[in-house]
Amino acid sequence: MEQISLSILGSSSAIPLSNRSPSAQFLSIADEHFLIDCGEGTQVKLRQHRIGFSRIKHILISHLHGDHFYGLIPLLTSLQLLERQQAVHLYGPQELEEVLRTFLKMTQAKIQYPLKFHPLNKNSKTLIYESEQLEVHSFPLRHSVDCFGFYFQEKARPRKMNKELLEKLDIPVAEIRGIKNGKDWLDKRGKRYPNEELTLDPPAAFSYAYCSDTLPVKHLHRYFKGVDLLYHEATFLNKDRERALATTHSTAEQAAEIAEICDARYLLLGHFSARYRNLDPIIEEARTIFKRSYEAREGYRFYLNRDRESLQMEKESKY
Amino acid sequence: MEQISLSILGSSSAIPLSNRSPSAQFLSIADEHFLIDCGEGTQVKLRQHRIGFSRIKHILISHLHGDHFYGLIPLLTSLQLLERQQAVHLYGPQELEEVLRTFLKMTQAKIQYPLKFHPLNKNSKTLIYESEQLEVHSFPLRHSVDCFGFYFQEKARPRKMNKELLEKLDIPVAEIRGIKNGKDWLDKRGKRYPNEELTLDPPAAFSYAYCSDTLPVKHLHRYFKGVDLLYHEATFLNKDRERALATTHSTAEQAAEIAEICDARYLLLGHFSARYRNLDPIIEEARTIFKRSYEAREGYRFYLNRDRESLQMEKESKY
Repeated sequence: MEQISLSILGSSSAIPLSNRSPSAQFLSIADEHFLIDCGEGTQVKLRQHRIGFSRIKHILISHLHGDHFYGLIPLLTSLQLLERQQAVHLYGPQELEEVLRTFLKMTQAKIQYPLKFHPLNKNSKTLIYESEQLEVHSFPLRHSVDCFGFYFQEKARPRKMNKELLEKLDIPVAEIRGIKNGKDWLDKRGKRYPNEELTLDPPAAFSYAYCSDTLPVKHLHRYFKGVDLLYHEATFLNKDRERALATTHSTAEQAAEIAEICDARYLLLGHFSARYRNLDPIIEEARTIFKRSYEAREGYRFYLNRDRESLQMEKESKY
Repeated sequence: MEQISLSILGSSSAIPLSNRSPSAQFLSIADEHFLIDCGEGTQVKLRQHRIGFSRIKHILISHLHGDHFYGLIPLLTSLQLLERQQAVHLYGPQELEEVLRTFLKMTQAKIQYPLKFHPLNKNSKTLIYESEQLEVHSFPLRHSVDCFGFYFQEKARPRKMNKELLEKLDIPVAEIRGIKNGKDWLDKRGKRYPNEELTLDPPAAFSYAYCSDTLPVKHLHRYFKGVDLLYHEATFLNKDRERALATTHSTAEQAAEIAEICDARYLLLGHFSARYRNLDPIIEEARTIFKRSYEAREGYRFYLNRDRESLQMEKESKY
């Protein structure tokens, strides 16, 4: 559990290009894995990233536009062919279940492993998944159809025992539990050792927010202020902001402003319009406002270490 | 109209690999174009082959298994985004129309250009498209669901005038029509020139047969005896023929036998099972029976010149 890693499987908006695929990402955080959006061709991208299908347990679909979910039925039917047994959890707009079940039934495609649907709440930030180490929330975005963002937050972990000091002070084992719960310690002579000395800071907790298709939403900071890694769509350049408004999308400048307002550590940009063959101007536009902006292109894998001192990027050789 | 060209967009059976995509081919024959099957990711493959979307007018779907049609809805919605006006003609199993219309409606995806459905006949070889130069037939195959093959046949063209001889003999223009219609010619001295001397053989008419998922069907020769180019699935090797039988597929050996029986000129093999990472044994198995066997891999484009002396193959650089 040393890193957060994020594989980018697609970066295109509506129309894919020969070298840009529709939206999909694979996130590993707190020893768990999440497939976020699933545009056409995602199963092949997973293979190109050498991500085993057995790691797919949670699939989150932001909205029902084709470039975000047309790869879902192909992936689910491939899992069936691979004799999947374990349940797959699907989080998405309420209509997703009926769309899938109707299509599978009409085409006589049987899925025999359990499909668990978790319809998302349109009205507010909502806890959709929780483990011992992690919370995942959905929150509403502003797009031409119901659309959701996702926020992944590791839980704060308990402070660690300062073993060296505890041994030196020869503290009885029976007292350890109290110290773990935040108590100070008084030695035989009545000297007080404050809990902050007896314990060490826990490893930092990571967070990631995914904001797919949306107009810029100024109050996003209420959902994930201080997020480590923020993905925000940047379909257009600021010079095309009228087009962004008309199609309920954001510009690179607007995405950077959101990162600024949310006090994000790093910003990843994606969902690029097919009109821009060269993406440099998009990243440059964002960086004039928010310096730590990066393009989230297919084939990239981002790592964030616990120290958060830099965002590492690797490129898959198969691209 | 000098060549027949066939671009292979996918060669995998059910489960795609990182370098093998599901079935799709793009055929150019007699100045017309046909997209045959449309597995997931076909629109990206079309771009990688630099095949303009405006050339898509006829889409033929062999059957409703995902690896043959999951790319259809993504392609049709992309055409809408590209503001397509011209009709698209869809040929496929009867259920195709309802499956598409239901899915598009449920996901609120509007297609505003005309979609013309042509349901295929399960019972016999049937003419599905005809132009001045071409006939296209469908015919039933034997698979676990209704499945169809397609036969593209250029019409025989009229014999050409032997201009050199006609000039030498100083034949009046008024007589040309009769010669075109097959008449002989008598000169002033009563010497007879047979029509076969006055006219030249027309360019050969091309033919292509596409046999997607099927058990070997011994009577296929009734549909396309003497076909120039035959595509036949070869999902398995002969050593796995029990598996082929159980899943209603063919082996490379069986495909080669079909090519032999049908007196085909060239055989293309595809729809390879994911279990074979190396395809050489499949081609070798076919060649022991039918020498002119080739693998139809994604990224390949085959050309057959009028002289039919050899099958040319090019490889797209983007693969």
